[in-house]
Amino acid sequence: MPQAQGPSFARTERTVPTRARERAGYDHTTVHAILDAGYVCHLGFVRDGAPVVLPTLYGRVGNRLYLHGSTGSRPLRMAGEPAGPGLPVCVTVTHVDGLVLAKSAFHHSINYRSVVVHGTAYQVTDPDEKTAALDALVDHVLPGRAADSRPANAKELAATAVIRLDLEEVSAKVRTGGPNDEPEDETLPYWSGVLPVSPVYGAPVPADSLAPGIAEPAYLSAR
Amino acid sequence: MPQAQGPSFARTERTVPTRARERAGYDHTTVHAILDAGYVCHLGFVRDGAPVVLPTLYGRVGNRLYLHGSTGSRPLRMAGEPAGPGLPVCVTVTHVDGLVLAKSAFHHSINYRSVVVHGTAYQVTDPDEKTAALDALVDHVLPGRAADSRPANAKELAATAVIRLDLEEVSAKVRTGGPNDEPEDETLPYWSGVLPVSPVYGAPVPADSLAPGIAEPAYLSAR
Repeated sequence: MPQAQGPSFARTERTVPTRARERAGYDHTTVHAILDAGYVCHLGFVRDGAPVVLPTLYGRVGNRLYLHGSTGSRPLRMAGEPAGPGLPVCVTVTHVDGLVLAKSAFHHSINYRSVVVHGTAYQVTDPDEKTAALDALVDHVLPGRAADSRPANAKELAATAVIRLDLEEVSAKVRTGGPNDEPEDETLPYWSGVLPVSPVYGAPVPADSLAPGIAEPAYLSAR
Repeated sequence: MPQAQGPSFARTERTVPTRARERAGYDHTTVHAILDAGYVCHLGFVRDGAPVVLPTLYGRVGNRLYLHGSTGSRPLRMAGEPAGPGLPVCVTVTHVDGLVLAKSAFHHSINYRSVVVHGTAYQVTDPDEKTAALDALVDHVLPGRAADSRPANAKELAATAVIRLDLEEVSAKVRTGGPNDEPEDETLPYWSGVLPVSPVYGAPVPADSLAPGIAEPAYLSAR
Protein backbone atom coordinates (compact mmCIF):
# COMPACT_ATOMS: atom_id res chain seq x y z
CA MET A 1 0.00 0.00 0.00
CA PRO A 2 1.17 3.60 -0.54
CA GLN A 3 2.77 4.95 2.63
CA ALA A 4 1.27 8.22 3.87
CA GLN A 5 3.38 11.14 5.08
CA GLY A 6 3.76 11.80 8.79
CA PRO A 7 4.72 9.70 11.80
CA SER A 8 4.80 5.90 11.63
CA PHE A 9 4.82 3.04 14.10
CA ALA A 10 8.14 1.20 14.28
CA ARG A 11 8.16 -2.17 12.51
CA THR A 12 8.82 -5.20 14.66
CA GLU A 13 9.23 -8.88 13.98
CA ARG A 14 5.54 -9.32 14.93
CA THR A 15 4.18 -6.57 12.70
CA VAL A 16 6.00 -7.37 9.45
CA PRO A 17 3.97 -10.08 7.71
CA THR A 18 5.66 -13.18 6.31
CA ARG A 19 3.90 -12.63 2.98
CA ALA A 20 2.06 -9.89 1.02
CA ARG A 21 4.30 -7.26 2.67
CA GLU A 22 3.21 -4.71 0.08
CA ARG A 23 -0.22 -4.72 1.74
CA ALA A 24 1.17 -3.64 5.14
CA GLY A 25 1.22 -0.07 6.42
CA TYR A 26 2.57 1.54 9.57
CA ASP A 27 1.77 5.25 9.35
CA HIS A 28 -0.45 6.76 12.05
CA THR A 29 -2.86 8.25 9.50
CA THR A 30 -3.72 4.89 7.93
CA VAL A 31 -3.93 3.06 11.26
CA HIS A 32 -6.13 5.72 12.87
CA ALA A 33 -8.47 5.86 9.85
CA ILE A 34 -9.05 2.09 9.93
CA LEU A 35 -9.60 2.10 13.70
CA ASP A 36 -11.98 5.07 13.48
CA ALA A 37 -14.05 3.44 10.72
CA GLY A 38 -15.17 0.71 13.14
CA TYR A 39 -16.26 0.15 16.71
CA VAL A 40 -16.13 -3.63 17.21
CA CYS A 41 -12.72 -5.22 17.68
CA HIS A 42 -11.66 -8.79 18.39
CA LEU A 43 -9.72 -8.95 21.66
CA GLY A 44 -7.30 -11.86 22.03
CA PHE A 45 -5.70 -12.95 25.28
CA VAL A 46 -4.25 -16.11 26.76
CA ARG A 47 -6.09 -18.01 29.49
CA ASP A 48 -4.62 -21.18 30.98
CA GLY A 49 -2.21 -21.33 28.05
CA ALA A 50 -4.95 -21.27 25.39
CA PRO A 51 -6.05 -18.37 23.17
CA VAL A 52 -9.40 -16.63 23.68
CA VAL A 53 -10.90 -14.21 21.12
CA LEU A 54 -13.91 -12.10 22.08
CA PRO A 55 -15.72 -9.36 20.15
CA THR A 56 -15.99 -6.11 22.09
CA LEU A 57 -16.36 -2.35 21.59
CA TYR A 58 -13.43 0.06 21.64
CA GLY A 59 -12.69 3.77 21.59
CA ARG A 60 -9.53 5.67 20.62
CA VAL A 61 -7.94 8.74 22.18
CA GLY A 62 -4.74 9.67 20.33
CA ASN A 63 -2.46 6.64 20.33
CA ARG A 64 -4.39 4.81 23.04
CA LEU A 65 -7.27 2.35 22.73
CA TYR A 66 -9.86 1.85 25.45
CA LEU A 67 -11.97 -1.29 25.95
CA HIS A 68 -14.54 -1.80 28.66
CA GLY A 69 -16.70 -4.42 30.26
CA SER A 70 -18.15 -5.67 33.48
CA THR A 71 -15.74 -5.75 36.40
CA GLY A 72 -16.59 -9.47 36.51
CA SER A 73 -15.47 -10.24 32.95
CA ARG A 74 -12.44 -12.50 32.61
CA PRO A 75 -10.04 -10.35 30.54
CA LEU A 76 -10.83 -7.26 32.59
CA ARG A 77 -10.16 -9.12 35.84
CA MET A 78 -6.97 -10.55 34.31
CA ALA A 79 -5.72 -7.08 33.30
CA GLY A 80 -5.45 -6.47 37.04
CA GLU A 81 -4.21 -3.36 38.78
CA PRO A 82 -2.52 -0.43 37.03
CA ALA A 83 0.82 -1.13 38.76
CA GLY A 84 0.65 -4.86 38.00
CA PRO A 85 2.11 -6.72 35.03
CA GLY A 86 -0.98 -6.14 32.87
CA LEU A 87 -2.48 -8.55 30.35
CA PRO A 88 -0.75 -9.33 27.03
CA VAL A 89 -3.39 -8.81 24.34
CA CYS A 90 -3.83 -8.60 20.60
CA VAL A 91 -6.63 -6.34 19.34
CA THR A 92 -7.71 -6.69 15.72
CA VAL A 93 -10.14 -4.53 13.74
CA THR A 94 -11.27 -5.69 10.29
CA HIS A 95 -13.45 -4.12 7.60
CA VAL A 96 -14.50 -6.19 4.58
CA ASP A 97 -14.83 -4.07 1.41
CA GLY A 98 -15.43 -6.65 -1.29
CA LEU A 99 -15.38 -10.24 -2.47
CA VAL A 100 -12.68 -10.74 -5.10
CA LEU A 101 -13.63 -13.39 -7.66
CA ALA A 102 -10.76 -14.66 -9.76
CA LYS A 103 -11.03 -17.13 -12.64
CA SER A 104 -9.09 -19.66 -10.55
CA ALA A 105 -10.28 -20.81 -7.13
CA PHE A 106 -6.73 -20.20 -5.86
CA HIS A 107 -6.74 -16.44 -6.56
CA HIS A 108 -10.07 -15.71 -4.89
CA SER A 109 -9.60 -13.11 -2.20
CA ILE A 110 -11.21 -10.41 -0.11
CA ASN A 111 -10.71 -6.66 -0.24
CA TYR A 112 -10.29 -5.53 3.34
CA ARG A 113 -8.72 -3.07 5.73
CA SER A 114 -7.43 -4.37 9.05
CA VAL A 115 -5.33 -3.22 11.99
CA VAL A 116 -3.57 -5.55 14.43
CA VAL A 117 -2.35 -4.15 17.75
CA HIS A 118 0.02 -6.13 19.98
CA GLY A 119 0.63 -4.97 23.52
CA THR A 120 -0.18 -5.10 27.19
CA ALA A 121 -3.52 -3.91 28.55
CA TYR A 122 -3.80 -2.22 31.94
CA GLN A 123 -6.76 -1.31 34.10
CA VAL A 124 -7.69 2.37 34.11
CA THR A 125 -8.46 3.54 37.64
CA ASP A 126 -7.94 7.29 37.43
CA PRO A 127 -11.53 8.64 37.57
CA ASP A 128 -10.97 11.38 34.97
CA GLU A 129 -9.28 9.03 32.48
CA LYS A 130 -12.01 6.44 33.05
CA THR A 131 -14.79 8.95 32.38
CA ALA A 132 -13.03 10.26 29.27
CA ALA A 133 -12.48 6.67 28.08
CA LEU A 134 -16.18 5.80 28.45
CA ASP A 135 -17.16 8.97 26.57
CA ALA A 136 -14.70 7.98 23.83
CA LEU A 137 -16.22 4.50 23.65
CA VAL A 138 -19.76 5.86 23.20
CA ASP A 139 -18.67 8.56 20.75
CA HIS A 140 -16.65 6.04 18.76
CA VAL A 141 -19.85 4.12 17.97
CA LEU A 142 -21.87 7.26 17.29
CA PRO A 143 -20.01 10.61 17.34
CA GLY A 144 -21.91 13.14 19.46
CA ARG A 145 -23.85 10.58 21.47
CA ALA A 146 -21.85 10.78 24.74
CA ALA A 147 -23.01 14.36 25.37
CA ASP A 148 -26.60 13.38 24.48
CA SER A 149 -27.16 10.66 27.11
CA ARG A 150 -27.12 10.44 30.89
CA PRO A 151 -23.52 10.08 32.13
CA ALA A 152 -22.67 7.05 34.26
CA ASN A 153 -23.40 7.46 37.98
CA ALA A 154 -21.10 6.29 40.76
CA LYS A 155 -22.67 2.82 40.95
CA GLU A 156 -22.42 2.30 37.17
CA LEU A 157 -18.81 3.54 37.11
CA ALA A 158 -17.92 1.09 39.88
CA ALA A 159 -19.47 -1.79 37.92
CA THR A 160 -17.53 -0.93 34.74
CA ALA A 161 -13.91 -1.85 34.18
CA VAL A 162 -11.89 -0.01 31.54
CA ILE A 163 -8.58 -1.17 30.11
CA ARG A 164 -6.15 0.81 28.01
CA LEU A 165 -3.78 -0.39 25.31
CA ASP A 166 -1.18 1.95 23.86
CA LEU A 167 -0.71 1.91 20.09
CA GLU A 168 3.00 1.09 19.83
CA GLU A 169 3.36 -2.27 18.06
CA VAL A 170 0.80 -1.81 15.32
CA SER A 171 0.32 -2.56 11.66
CA ALA A 172 -2.40 -2.01 9.07
CA LYS A 173 -3.06 -4.31 6.15
CA VAL A 174 -5.10 -3.28 3.12
CA ARG A 175 -6.10 -5.09 -0.06
CA THR A 176 -7.85 -3.19 -2.85
CA GLY A 177 -8.53 -3.73 -6.53
CA GLY A 178 -9.53 -6.58 -8.78
CA PRO A 179 -8.45 -10.22 -9.00
CA ASN A 180 -4.83 -11.16 -9.76
CA ASP A 181 -5.59 -13.77 -12.41
CA GLU A 182 -2.83 -15.82 -14.01
CA PRO A 183 -2.30 -14.61 -17.61
CA GLU A 184 -3.10 -18.11 -18.93
CA ASP A 185 -6.49 -18.06 -17.13
CA GLU A 186 -7.76 -14.87 -18.73
CA THR A 187 -9.64 -16.63 -21.54
CA LEU A 188 -11.48 -19.04 -19.21
CA PRO A 189 -15.27 -18.63 -19.41
CA TYR A 190 -15.76 -17.59 -15.77
CA TRP A 191 -16.94 -14.21 -14.51
CA SER A 192 -14.23 -12.35 -12.60
CA GLY A 193 -14.27 -9.10 -10.72
CA VAL A 194 -15.24 -7.66 -7.37
CA LEU A 195 -18.52 -7.72 -5.46
CA PRO A 196 -18.36 -4.63 -3.20
CA VAL A 197 -19.76 -4.88 0.33
CA SER A 198 -20.22 -2.29 3.05
CA PRO A 199 -22.23 -1.87 6.25
CA VAL A 200 -25.47 0.01 5.68
CA TYR A 201 -27.58 1.56 8.42
CA GLY A 202 -31.37 1.21 8.34
CA ALA A 203 -34.09 3.50 9.61
CA PRO A 204 -33.78 4.08 13.38
CA VAL A 205 -36.27 2.04 15.46
CA PRO A 206 -37.45 4.12 18.46
CA ALA A 207 -37.70 2.34 21.83
CA ASP A 208 -41.23 1.43 22.99
CA SER A 209 -40.80 3.82 25.92
CA LEU A 210 -39.72 6.80 23.81
CA ALA A 211 -41.90 9.86 24.43
CA PRO A 212 -43.40 11.21 21.16
CA GLY A 213 -41.85 14.69 21.53
CA ILE A 214 -38.21 13.51 21.26
CA ALA A 215 -36.80 14.15 17.80
CA GLU A 216 -34.36 11.85 16.04
CA PRO A 217 -30.89 13.35 16.63
CA ALA A 218 -28.78 14.52 13.68
CA TYR A 219 -25.90 12.12 14.52
CA LEU A 220 -28.22 9.19 13.77
CA SER A 221 -29.00 10.30 10.25
CA ALA A 222 -25.27 11.00 9.76
CA ARG A 223 -24.54 7.25 9.98
CA MET B 1 -31.89 -16.73 23.93
CA PRO B 2 -34.54 -19.34 23.15
CA GLN B 3 -32.94 -22.78 22.81
CA ALA B 4 -33.75 -24.55 19.53
CA GLN B 5 -34.69 -28.21 19.32
CA GLY B 6 -32.14 -30.78 18.16
CA PRO B 7 -28.58 -31.62 19.19
CA SER B 8 -26.47 -29.24 21.27
CA PHE B 9 -22.79 -28.77 22.04
CA ALA B 10 -21.86 -29.69 25.62
CA ARG B 11 -21.29 -26.69 27.89
CA THR B 12 -17.82 -26.32 29.36
CA GLU B 13 -16.25 -23.93 31.80
CA ARG B 14 -14.89 -21.99 28.79
CA THR B 15 -18.18 -21.73 26.92
CA VAL B 16 -20.49 -20.63 29.75
CA PRO B 17 -20.09 -16.84 30.07
CA THR B 18 -19.55 -15.20 33.45
CA ARG B 19 -22.40 -12.76 32.71
CA ALA B 20 -25.42 -12.34 30.40
CA ARG B 21 -25.85 -16.14 30.34
CA GLU B 22 -29.33 -15.73 28.89
CA ARG B 23 -27.68 -14.56 25.66
CA ALA B 24 -25.72 -17.82 25.22
CA GLY B 25 -26.81 -20.73 23.02
CA TYR B 26 -25.34 -24.17 22.34
CA ASP B 27 -27.65 -25.87 19.83
CA HIS B 28 -26.19 -26.89 16.48
CA THR B 29 -28.89 -25.04 14.52
CA THR B 30 -28.08 -21.66 16.04
CA VAL B 31 -24.30 -22.15 15.84
CA HIS B 32 -24.39 -23.31 12.22
CA ALA B 33 -26.69 -20.46 11.16
CA ILE B 34 -24.34 -17.83 12.63
CA LEU B 35 -21.28 -19.47 11.07
CA ASP B 36 -22.99 -19.78 7.68
CA ALA B 37 -24.08 -16.12 7.69
CA GLY B 38 -20.41 -15.03 7.50
CA TYR B 39 -17.12 -15.89 5.87
CA VAL B 40 -14.50 -13.90 7.80
CA CYS B 41 -13.48 -15.18 11.23
CA HIS B 42 -10.89 -13.97 13.71
CA LEU B 43 -8.34 -16.71 14.40
CA GLY B 44 -6.56 -16.53 17.74
CA PHE B 45 -3.43 -18.49 18.63
CA VAL B 46 -0.52 -18.16 21.01
CA ARG B 47 2.96 -17.32 19.72
CA ASP B 48 5.91 -17.02 22.12
CA GLY B 49 3.41 -16.83 24.98
CA ALA B 50 1.50 -13.87 23.53
CA PRO B 51 -1.89 -13.86 21.78
CA VAL B 52 -2.21 -13.20 18.05
CA VAL B 53 -5.57 -12.49 16.34
CA LEU B 54 -5.78 -12.50 12.54
CA PRO B 55 -8.77 -12.13 10.23
CA THR B 56 -9.12 -14.98 7.75
CA LEU B 57 -11.72 -16.84 5.66
CA TYR B 58 -13.36 -20.08 6.74
CA GLY B 59 -15.66 -22.78 5.42
CA ARG B 60 -17.85 -25.30 7.26
CA VAL B 61 -18.56 -28.95 6.47
CA GLY B 62 -20.87 -30.45 9.09
CA ASN B 63 -19.28 -29.94 12.49
CA ARG B 64 -15.86 -29.08 11.11
CA LEU B 65 -14.39 -25.69 10.17
CA TYR B 66 -11.67 -25.28 7.57
CA LEU B 67 -9.24 -22.35 7.36
CA HIS B 68 -6.53 -21.92 4.77
CA GLY B 69 -3.51 -19.87 3.94
CA SER B 70 -0.06 -19.90 2.48
CA THR B 71 2.11 -22.79 3.62
CA GLY B 72 4.48 -20.06 4.82
CA SER B 73 1.99 -18.38 7.16
CA ARG B 74 2.76 -18.60 10.85
CA PRO B 75 -0.38 -20.26 12.28
CA LEU B 76 -0.48 -22.79 9.45
CA ARG B 77 3.16 -23.73 10.00
CA MET B 78 2.48 -23.94 13.73
CA ALA B 79 -0.47 -26.30 13.22
CA GLY B 80 2.12 -28.76 12.01
CA GLU B 81 1.57 -32.31 10.89
CA PRO B 82 -1.70 -34.24 11.25
CA ALA B 83 -0.19 -36.67 13.76
CA GLY B 84 1.41 -33.85 15.78
CA PRO B 85 0.01 -32.02 18.79
CA GLY B 86 -1.81 -29.43 16.65
CA LEU B 87 -2.26 -25.75 17.44
CA PRO B 88 -4.62 -24.56 20.20
CA VAL B 89 -6.85 -21.93 18.61
CA CYS B 90 -9.93 -19.85 19.24
CA VAL B 91 -12.02 -18.95 16.19
CA THR B 92 -14.62 -16.21 16.57
CA VAL B 93 -17.27 -15.08 14.08
CA THR B 94 -19.25 -11.90 14.80
CA HIS B 95 -22.15 -10.18 13.02
CA VAL B 96 -23.25 -6.71 14.14
CA ASP B 97 -27.02 -6.18 13.70
CA GLY B 98 -27.62 -2.82 15.36
CA LEU B 99 -26.44 -0.03 17.61
CA VAL B 100 -28.50 0.06 20.80
CA LEU B 101 -28.91 3.60 22.16
CA ALA B 102 -30.11 3.79 25.74
CA LYS B 103 -30.94 6.96 27.64
CA SER B 104 -27.97 6.28 29.92
CA ALA B 105 -24.41 5.92 28.56
CA PHE B 106 -24.09 2.78 30.72
CA HIS B 107 -26.87 0.85 28.96
CA HIS B 108 -25.64 1.47 25.43
CA SER B 109 -25.06 -1.81 23.66
CA ILE B 110 -24.82 -3.61 20.34
CA ASN B 111 -27.19 -6.15 18.83
CA TYR B 112 -25.02 -8.96 17.53
CA ARG B 113 -24.69 -12.67 16.82
CA SER B 114 -21.38 -14.34 17.56
CA VAL B 115 -19.88 -17.82 17.77
CA VAL B 116 -16.71 -18.68 19.69
CA VAL B 117 -14.98 -22.01 18.96
CA HIS B 118 -12.23 -23.34 21.24
CA GLY B 119 -10.14 -26.26 20.09
CA THR B 120 -7.04 -27.59 18.42
CA ALA B 121 -6.37 -27.08 14.71
CA TYR B 122 -4.61 -29.72 12.63
CA GLN B 123 -3.14 -29.65 9.14
CA VAL B 124 -5.23 -31.36 6.48
CA THR B 125 -3.01 -33.48 4.23
CA ASP B 126 -5.46 -36.00 2.75
CA PRO B 127 -5.83 -34.77 -0.86
CA ASP B 128 -9.57 -35.44 -1.08
CA GLU B 129 -10.33 -33.70 2.21
CA LYS B 130 -8.08 -30.80 1.22
CA THR B 131 -9.86 -30.34 -2.12
CA ALA B 132 -13.29 -30.57 -0.48
CA ALA B 133 -12.18 -28.06 2.16
CA LEU B 134 -11.03 -25.53 -0.45
CA ASP B 135 -14.33 -25.93 -2.33
CA ALA B 136 -16.16 -25.35 0.96
CA LEU B 137 -14.11 -22.21 1.60
CA VAL B 138 -14.96 -20.73 -1.81
CA ASP B 139 -18.62 -21.77 -1.61
CA HIS B 140 -18.91 -20.37 1.90
CA VAL B 141 -18.12 -16.89 0.57
CA LEU B 142 -20.35 -17.28 -2.49
CA PRO B 143 -22.46 -20.45 -2.76
CA GLY B 144 -22.07 -22.00 -6.21
CA ARG B 145 -18.77 -20.32 -7.03
CA ALA B 146 -16.45 -23.33 -6.50
CA ALA B 147 -17.95 -25.18 -9.48
CA ASP B 148 -17.77 -22.00 -11.57
CA SER B 149 -14.00 -21.36 -11.38
CA ARG B 150 -10.84 -23.21 -12.33
CA PRO B 151 -9.93 -25.76 -9.61
CA ALA B 152 -6.52 -25.51 -7.99
CA ASN B 153 -3.72 -27.25 -9.87
CA ALA B 154 -0.99 -29.32 -8.21
CA LYS B 155 1.33 -26.36 -7.73
CA GLU B 156 -1.41 -24.23 -6.17
CA LEU B 157 -2.51 -27.08 -3.90
CA ALA B 158 1.06 -27.54 -2.73
CA ALA B 159 1.34 -23.83 -1.90
CA THR B 160 -1.88 -23.84 0.13
CA ALA B 161 -2.12 -25.12 3.67
CA VAL B 162 -5.51 -26.09 5.11
CA ILE B 163 -6.27 -26.57 8.77
CA ARG B 164 -9.35 -28.16 10.33
CA LEU B 165 -11.01 -27.40 13.63
CA ASP B 166 -13.79 -29.62 14.93
CA LEU B 167 -16.85 -27.93 16.44
CA GLU B 168 -16.89 -29.45 19.91
CA GLU B 169 -16.34 -26.70 22.45
CA VAL B 170 -18.58 -24.03 20.97
CA SER B 171 -21.04 -21.38 22.06
CA ALA B 172 -23.20 -18.78 20.36
CA LYS B 173 -24.11 -15.43 21.87
CA VAL B 174 -26.98 -13.30 20.59
CA ARG B 175 -28.37 -9.93 21.67
CA THR B 176 -31.57 -8.63 20.09
CA GLY B 177 -34.16 -5.97 20.92
CA GLY B 178 -34.21 -2.46 22.26
CA PRO B 179 -32.33 -0.73 25.07
CA ASN B 180 -32.71 -1.86 28.69
CA ASP B 181 -33.24 1.57 30.19
CA GLU B 182 -33.57 2.04 33.94
CA PRO B 183 -37.20 2.86 34.81
CA GLU B 184 -36.15 6.18 36.37
CA ASP B 185 -34.42 7.21 33.11
CA GLU B 186 -37.48 6.83 30.90
CA THR B 187 -38.51 10.47 31.11
CA LEU B 188 -35.07 11.84 30.23
CA PRO B 189 -35.11 13.92 27.01
CA TYR B 190 -32.76 11.67 25.01
CA TRP B 191 -33.64 9.62 21.93
CA SER B 192 -33.45 5.88 22.58
CA GLY B 193 -33.86 2.90 20.32
CA VAL B 194 -31.92 0.85 17.80
CA LEU B 195 -30.06 1.83 14.64
CA PRO B 196 -30.08 -1.34 12.49
CA VAL B 197 -26.96 -2.20 10.47
CA SER B 198 -26.27 -4.95 7.96
CA PRO B 199 -23.77 -5.68 5.19
CA VAL B 200 -25.06 -4.64 1.77
CA TYR B 201 -23.58 -5.78 -1.53
CA GLY B 202 -23.11 -3.27 -4.35
CA ALA B 203 -23.19 -3.76 -8.10
CA PRO B 204 -20.52 -6.26 -9.25
CA VAL B 205 -17.43 -4.61 -10.80
CA PRO B 206 -16.12 -6.75 -13.70
CA ALA B 207 -12.36 -7.27 -13.96
CA ASP B 208 -10.58 -5.23 -16.64
CA SER B 209 -9.68 -8.47 -18.38
CA LEU B 210 -13.23 -9.87 -18.46
CA ALA B 211 -14.34 -10.79 -21.99
CA PRO B 212 -17.61 -9.04 -22.93
CA GLY B 213 -19.52 -12.29 -23.58
CA ILE B 214 -19.36 -13.56 -19.99
CA ALA B 215 -22.63 -12.98 -18.19
CA GLU B 216 -22.92 -12.10 -14.51
CA PRO B 217 -23.65 -15.37 -12.68
CA ALA B 218 -26.88 -15.80 -10.72
CA TYR B 219 -25.06 -16.46 -7.43
CA LEU B 220 -23.72 -12.91 -7.56
CA SER B 221 -27.12 -11.29 -7.73
CA ALA B 222 -28.26 -13.66 -4.95
CA ARG B 223 -25.93 -11.87 -2.48
